[in-house]
Amino acid sequence: MTTIDLNADLGESTAGNPVADDAAMIGLISSANVACGFHAGDPHGIATTLASAAERGAVVGAHVGYNDKAGFGRRFIDYAPAELADEITYQIGALDALARANGTKVSYVKPHGALYNTIVRNEEHAQAVIDGVRAFADLPLMLLPGGVAVDLAEKAGLRVVREAFADRAYNPDGTLVSRREAGAVLTDPEAVAARVLQVATSGAVTARHGSVLEVDAESVCVHGDSPGAVELTRAVVERLGAEGVKIEGFL
Amino acid sequence: MTTIDLNADLGESTAGNPVADDAAMIGLISSANVACGFHAGDPHGIATTLASAAERGAVVGAHVGYNDKAGFGRRFIDYAPAELADEITYQIGALDALARANGTKVSYVKPHGALYNTIVRNEEHAQAVIDGVRAFADLPLMLLPGGVAVDLAEKAGLRVVREAFADRAYNPDGTLVSRREAGAVLTDPEAVAARVLQVATSGAVTARHGSVLEVDAESVCVHGDSPGAVELTRAVVERLGAEGVKIEGFL
Amino acid sequence: MTTIDLNADLGESTAGNPVADDAAMIGLISSANVACGFHAGDPHGIATTLASAAERGAVVGAHVGYNDKAGFGRRFIDYAPAELADEITYQIGALDALARANGTKVSYVKPHGALYNTIVRNEEHAQAVIDGVRAFADLPLMLLPGGVAVDLAEKAGLRVVREAFADRAYNPDGTLVSRREAGAVLTDPEAVAARVLQVATSGAVTARHGSVLEVDAESVCVHGDSPGAVELTRAVVERLGAEGVKIEGFL
Amino acid sequence: MTTIDLNADLGESTAGNPVADDAAMIGLISSANVACGFHAGDPHGIATTLASAAERGAVVGAHVGYNDKAGFGRRFIDYAPAELADEITYQIGALDALARANGTKVSYVKPHGALYNTIVRNEEHAQAVIDGVRAFADLPLMLLPGGVAVDLAEKAGLRVVREAFADRAYNPDGTLVSRREAGAVLTDPEAVAARVLQVATSGAVTARHGSVLEVDAESVCVHGDSPGAVELTRAVVERLGAEGVKIEGFL
Repeated sequence: MTTIDLNADLGESTAGNPVADDAAMIGLISSANVACGFHAGDPHGIATTLASAAERGAVVGAHVGYNDKAGFGRRFIDYAPAELADEITYQIGALDALARANGTKVSYVKPHGALYNTIVRNEEHAQAVIDGVRAFADLPLMLLPGGVAVDLAEKAGLRVVREAFADRAYNPDGTLVSRREAGAVLTDPEAVAARVLQVATSGAVTARHGSVLEVDAESVCVHGDSPGAVELTRAVVERLGAEGVKIEGFL
Repeated sequence: MTTIDLNADLGESTAGNPVADDAAMIGLISSANVACGFHAGDPHGIATTLASAAERGAVVGAHVGYNDKAGFGRRFIDYAPAELADEITYQIGALDALARANGTKVSYVKPHGALYNTIVRNEEHAQAVIDGVRAFADLPLMLLPGGVAVDLAEKAGLRVVREAFADRAYNPDGTLVSRREAGAVLTDPEAVAARVLQVATSGAVTARHGSVLEVDAESVCVHGDSPGAVELTRAVVERLGAEGVKIEGFL
Repeated sequence: MTTIDLNADLGESTAGNPVADDAAMIGLISSANVACGFHAGDPHGIATTLASAAERGAVVGAHVGYNDKAGFGRRFIDYAPAELADEITYQIGALDALARANGTKVSYVKPHGALYNTIVRNEEHAQAVIDGVRAFADLPLMLLPGGVAVDLAEKAGLRVVREAFADRAYNPDGTLVSRREAGAVLTDPEAVAARVLQVATSGAVTARHGSVLEVDAESVCVHGDSPGAVELTRAVVERLGAEGVKIEGFL
Repeated sequence: MTTIDLNADLGESTAGNPVADDAAMIGLISSANVACGFHAGDPHGIATTLASAAERGAVVGAHVGYNDKAGFGRRFIDYAPAELADEITYQIGALDALARANGTKVSYVKPHGALYNTIVRNEEHAQAVIDGVRAFADLPLMLLPGGVAVDLAEKAGLRVVREAFADRAYNPDGTLVSRREAGAVLTDPEAVAARVLQVATSGAVTARHGSVLEVDAESVCVHGDSPGAVELTRAVVERLGAEGVKIEGFL
């Protein structure tokens, strides 16, 4: 049977104001990237999300980021590598403690925002993330296919889980179409479901102008934080069910 | 042979400005209360202190506090109990991950500042600290003798390590003389060493006006963050050695 | 002609995630309580809200709070009075600079959340708020009627603007019905509009069980941060217009 | 009579732990660069420093920085220009309010740490700083001689105050010798005093290997945050007095 992992960014409530409807999303996806309190989230809100994940059987990943709540982790910060590595270990340890207190655990790591994008090219920060993960445990790392972080992680012996994006248009070179361009974000449930189906059945995505990219993706990221996110995800889940594709964690 | 545990608050560098000479203090004490990044400390500075503790064989405790770096954890914050419990678990998990990455681990928990004082009387926050600790592991809790936290911790099955203060004058009721009063802080190495010796040999301290308090203390807190702290501690250590008292962790 | 001031809490975006639809709300109200970056808000988001207020002619108030973004300013913090006073002055100065850069200015001050509630009874924090305001300028202070802050502010020569709440049930003693009780929050546009009309025409509100409270309110707070807030406020505004009541700042 | 301005970075206490002996330094210098709470400092500690500056007649500058207390403002953060400009205005406004409450005012602006260094080359951030300053008032900007910020500030009509460093070795190209190299920091009071005298009398500094740089500096930065800083500065002040050079603000 064909399976696919759906992941979403959760646990990002700041100051009690939820960014996504975590409980609803957790009922639809298989992997929850849970914020660790550095780019977003506070311990109690995070714990609530972890309890939902434990209850619904969603696999938990540590969504580690730069220490920049004011910027939601979306701004590059020029850390020394040793500083960054220790911040990664700190975040994973904190999240794992809350996860275990709520009946689950951290099973993988996914960098967030500016950190996610930076380590596609920045070797020092990529290695620091890997060092920070390994200082905790040899956990799988969820990454954008291509880029230096993938190479360094595999060299370090970590499993790399490549991901695709359910609702983003791709350029022919594998990068995402900038949000500043028209058509960058897919909003039609049929188009989004078709993307997920394509990844599930062939590991590929079709880029703009029709070229097919072999991204080898094991997981597809759906967004939980836009208006209508839950409805869109539900539509995708229903379509996958109708096509006989099972949503299942990558582990 | 008579033994005593000496503990000190460390890992409190903020923004790269050291509050204490951690490396020097760690060479003198047996238990290091290491900040967890909430009242003070950042992951890299904390990791450096943990590496020193591992190297010198000092036992590591999680020095958990209210989330208030601006106030150094010295101000009461009116948390809901569930918020506080999750913040305690988060801090211990984060510190333990960095500790294990540096060859040691968290072996006990000591609340800091306003939290330390609040739980002497505030039952809700005392229970929240205990719940937060137990959500991680049944670690010993280092506390001021007397007070509601001691009772609740013992009722919950946690080991309580009572501590005395090497350089603070005591009132006859067991509370510390306020820093606003003259004579509140002992600065004479002889007087400080005598206090530690008394605790080591009899578990008691002599309060103002001569009354003897049975504090049953297993550990004595020395301050690492005042000018001359290292010299004062060294004098105490030498005096203890001369008297045949061994400095040793309480575990 | 009968007039009433409508105020709402705005500028509270955290990490780019809007808490309210500021632009829409500003088109409906007469006074904008704008966050100052301590309980919520960042300079750029705040500036955007201030530019809207300047464009639409809404009067700007400094919505000052405890320095606790993680808790959205909803937790009491035990500041020393001098610390609190300086934080108030800092917040007003910061907001006023951004306001002037965007064509408006700070015309009054309204404490937020735990600070708003604390100074109803805590004399030290009430006086600290007043001292912090006066260190900037003798600006009007928007407060809950009754309580020590009102008395101290008037004694200090500040104008006090008493406010009522459009959508909260009142106890017969003038306090608000706890959100934990059924019926604490009014959601029916008719009921909310009636409350505002009553304040506008008589300065009074009808409490539970029918008693009428003379709250002498010059302003009514409408909430901008709940789902449907904009629609509810629009309904109120239309009803006031139909009744010939003009929405106008209190200055 | 020959005069020179001496400036130092102050107001940087974090969590009550002083980074420098502000009161002692203020008695020696003519211009105090006071932290604004973003890279360091809290309102009450800042206010205490401002009161000292007012009492001793030191001119006050706003020492604006990236919002990164954990990194003491020493790490580049990739802000959008509009975000950065608003943060600059916010900081100046906050500091000016506290300054006026304490009998002084903000008379110039000096960027701190990573921001100071970034705008030597980064045109977007340089322009954002200038925009943020001008949104408050056309205040003089204290900068490293050379670089894009100087050019853009002068083009915008701001007065630029070029500064030299009392205790840092210069490369022949005008950059500072990296702290990682031996001899980067001058510690001999005679050498430091000679540097200040040279700037005072000729506006120049002698770089390594003897070349003379025309830096046109109107102010010399002395460090207040190293051990022995007060003694070193006092020696410089005495030497300047003996040579008949008067220490005086640049305004």
